Amino acid sequence: MKEQTIIINDTNIARCENNPLLTPDMVKPSCEGFIVKGVFNCGVAKYKEEYILLCRVAEAVKSDSEDVVKFPVIVNEDGKSCFKTITLIKSENSELCFDDSRTITRGKDGNSNVVYLTTLSHLRIARSKDGVHFTIDEHPTIMPNAENECWGMEDPRITRIDDTYYINYTAVSPYGAETALITTKDFGNFTREGCIFLPENKDVTIFPEKINGKYYAFNRPVPKAIGTPDIWLSESNDLIHWGKHQHFYGVSDTGWENGRIGGGAPPIKTEKGWIKIYHAADRNSRYCLGVFLLDLENPDKILAKSEKPLLEPEEYYEKNGFFGEVVFTCGCLYEDNKVIIYYGAADDTICRADISLEELYSHLGIGEQS
Amino acid sequence: MKEQTIIINDTNIARCENNPLLTPDMVKPSCEGFIVKGVFNCGVAKYKEEYILLCRVAEAVKSDSEDVVKFPVIVNEDGKSCFKTITLIKSENSELCFDDSRTITRGKDGNSNVVYLTTLSHLRIARSKDGVHFTIDEHPTIMPNAENECWGMEDPRITRIDDTYYINYTAVSPYGAETALITTKDFGNFTREGCIFLPENKDVTIFPEKINGKYYAFNRPVPKAIGTPDIWLSESNDLIHWGKHQHFYGVSDTGWENGRIGGGAPPIKTEKGWIKIYHAADRNSRYCLGVFLLDLENPDKILAKSEKPLLEPEEYYEKNGFFGEVVFTCGCLYEDNKVIIYYGAADDTICRADISLEELYSHLGIGEQS
Repeated sequence: MKEQTIIINDTNIARCENNPLLTPDMVKPSCEGFIVKGVFNCGVAKYKEEYILLCRVAEAVKSDSEDVVKFPVIVNEDGKSCFKTITLIKSENSELCFDDSRTITRGKDGNSNVVYLTTLSHLRIARSKDGVHFTIDEHPTIMPNAENECWGMEDPRITRIDDTYYINYTAVSPYGAETALITTKDFGNFTREGCIFLPENKDVTIFPEKINGKYYAFNRPVPKAIGTPDIWLSESNDLIHWGKHQHFYGVSDTGWENGRIGGGAPPIKTEKGWIKIYHAADRNSRYCLGVFLLDLENPDKILAKSEKPLLEPEEYYEKNGFFGEVVFTCGCLYEDNKVIIYYGAADDTICRADISLEELYSHLGIGEQS
Repeated sequence: MKEQTIIINDTNIARCENNPLLTPDMVKPSCEGFIVKGVFNCGVAKYKEEYILLCRVAEAVKSDSEDVVKFPVIVNEDGKSCFKTITLIKSENSELCFDDSRTITRGKDGNSNVVYLTTLSHLRIARSKDGVHFTIDEHPTIMPNAENECWGMEDPRITRIDDTYYINYTAVSPYGAETALITTKDFGNFTREGCIFLPENKDVTIFPEKINGKYYAFNRPVPKAIGTPDIWLSESNDLIHWGKHQHFYGVSDTGWENGRIGGGAPPIKTEKGWIKIYHAADRNSRYCLGVFLLDLENPDKILAKSEKPLLEPEEYYEKNGFFGEVVFTCGCLYEDNKVIIYYGAADDTICRADISLEELYSHLGIGEQS
């Protein structure tokens, strides 16, 4: 892997000088005794002249001892969803592995089974007039339910189609990590549309318009017995029921995308094709961003693709944090001829990086005249 | 597990005295040098007064040495799907595990990765006038393609809706085990409708009519990191695009269904509710059949369920074979007040067992008057 970490990123991507824009200390815990471990991986939208980030806020429960791990889950009590704190004493659970800051597993290798997550995530809106200075709401915007989300709501993506914002996110429970859909027209009233991709499937990104009469979404199933975590492309008539699933792009054998590949931000339409920022991790779970350029009429047709990462963990806040060596996007905006990438850094803060369309094409080896 | 193997099955289920009805020696190989290892797990339909079994036929390539494993896969050559024989020498591949007759894996435990299947399955029709004496076609009815089925087509289920037969089956490739759909009106012309459930998802059974305006199907995703192989219920408007997925029934902690649970036969409508024959395996991969009775208007509502297996491996041909200790159904018929279960035995033959509706209700603890 060593040569991957010394690549000099020669893209003219500009990190925002205010990075990180949002940090855990700016977020009020949703319950007394909770501690905010991360505000990261956000869906992005413009609504009424405001920049809206729908953030994943991850919380644990304060613990006074290194040996005691405490985190909330959601349970159903008398028909209402309530927090319940799970307490695990490490020294009394030697069969469990606490090495990964994100999960508690039985078994250590890549095939280990996740017994619990160490945090519970909900979704919360942060707002800004300029796209740089954000204020996050005092309270959660959408809390997980006690059924298919009792371990949390993660990594929302927002796709605007006409006057409706389609929010897809990872719903986590002991049944697995599925993708669910919520719609809103005003970011105040939300409608749950249920599970759109069965477990295990994350990193769903929906195209912002129909192509040849069909909606399309990328998604990333994780099969158990056979196969790797690859990107698939699916079709829909109504954004709720999906089919005609096709394998789109797989994990490569070597380099910065040999571990897993997926999602990223919902595609952006440009003259030369769909711009699809995606994420890829190597086998050491170092997460970078890359980009596909896709044919406007045939979204399964790749016109160009990053050979090297578009963005990789280089800054202190990307290399260090709740889970270090991670840049991970759930949403971009296309404004003034540039792509604004909001991204989670090290699974605990939200950052921004801008790149002009010309420089993005150049990264893809495409000249302006091509 | 021991007490599971000495349960005396007290259901009045009647195995056919001609069992097994179809055996590998009755099937002509699809290519010279091939050997038919199994004819099993068949979808079932009535068509023009004939009983139709759409059988899974599994083939390997003849090998003269215990140390040499040979099997076919499908590859694309000049735009055409062709057989290619893979040859593996056991003694030269010590990193691989050949212990399971069905798969070649890297790693031995339940989390091992499947590198190859030992056989390639295609679909072939067997026909009968009386439902007992079957003749299987000389040639494959549907051959796998070189893309998402290059490792085979397995375990077809047939659901008739109006004049169309919907055939769903497991399409296996290095991308994973997905569920694909084919339609036919005459069992001569077949239309491929593509992938309806992303990998890893098998054991799909489609209801034979709309319920409250929606089609429904059970399916069985196998998530990797979190969750167990459980049954989910999904909705559709067109049988091609599926959504509103809901967890239906999970693996239990003990007994005959503590390993995996799934599929079985498409549901049968009766006066008291939907009869849903399913399969369950324990942690030793001993496969039994059970039955759910589901509310006619709310297919997610379980009215009754087998406490003990409805059918379990007891006969010689069920306990011994390509993969022993297996009874596994993909299709039933409801005729003359009885349910006719066609089932694969030991992953190599096709058998039949009948049970009257009254006895099925009795197995479920439901009296005739209830």
